[in-house]
Amino acid sequence: MNSSVLQAIYQRRSIREFTEREIEPEIILEIIRAGIWAPSGLNNQPWRFVIIGDKDIKEQLSRQTHYSHIIMAAQVLIAVYLDKEAMYDSVKDYQSAGACIQNMLLAAEALELGAVWLGQILKNKAEVNTILKLDDRFDLMAVLALGYPRHKEQESTRKDINEFILRD
Amino acid sequence: MNSSVLQAIYQRRSIREFTEREIEPEIILEIIRAGIWAPSGLNNQPWRFVIIGDKDIKEQLSRQTHYSHIIMAAQVLIAVYLDKEAMYDSVKDYQSAGACIQNMLLAAEALELGAVWLGQILKNKAEVNTILKLDDRFDLMAVLALGYPRHKEQESTRKDINEFILRD
Repeated sequence: MNSSVLQAIYQRRSIREFTEREIEPEIILEIIRAGIWAPSGLNNQPWRFVIIGDKDIKEQLSRQTHYSHIIMAAQVLIAVYLDKEAMYDSVKDYQSAGACIQNMLLAAEALELGAVWLGQILKNKAEVNTILKLDDRFDLMAVLALGYPRHKEQESTRKDINEFILRD
Repeated sequence: MNSSVLQAIYQRRSIREFTEREIEPEIILEIIRAGIWAPSGLNNQPWRFVIIGDKDIKEQLSRQTHYSHIIMAAQVLIAVYLDKEAMYDSVKDYQSAGACIQNMLLAAEALELGAVWLGQILKNKAEVNTILKLDDRFDLMAVLALGYPRHKEQESTRKDINEFILRD
């Protein structure tokens, strides 16, 4: 298990260009299942999901972000929400949303999909809720764009690990 | 890679009882390295870490939470922070802290360590900063307690996956 898990963590990249290959519905469910096995405070499981494959809805969503081309190129979008009625502590619930999203990104990597975490669209989260016919009980956390990767040349960098360690 | 990554996500449990076996320093660094390969908005890499193995510091920290016994039983604690000078959007930075912590928990699982994400101690985060000699530039996100697991009998549950899917 050791090397595969660390390999997925280190090799995962944001993928923004996808092939025409469709994603089987059970693969999407597996990615959501990975998400809900994130930890949450008091095990409150506050995450909710909307699966979007419809081209018309994608077009409407694409107008809510600078990253329209990624929204349109994706085979499937998953909008990740918090249910305010399930939340108990906003900082901890936002953290748990992040843990859930990270599990989904790692599951996508393991399943040989490409994915990118889109956050800029949050500036229009009210409009996104209108498009998806959700009321403000549901707080948009991110939109994940998914598809089979057109390439895997994306690079990323991190500062030296010692810059992150304040005390030892 | 497929099954190992999903297996780590599904089998990971909060471990609160540890053996006396020490954790090698390079294992702790590997867990932090996994953390910093989380995604962050604009790649701002806002996470910071304090590694705590000293018994006296653990004793002081143990007085800041109901979970004193876990703090004292852990071989090593890692306090996870956000650097306010690196933050750009609090919701997205809290999410990124959650993604970082989840990577660390999965890395611990892959490395056969046990770990638990402690959040209740955040109610005394100012006191934790005093103990760790950090000023309020650094915002405590969680304390991870780590050690080799005494057992792996911990169970966990999730609601049915369909309860999380709002629309499809």
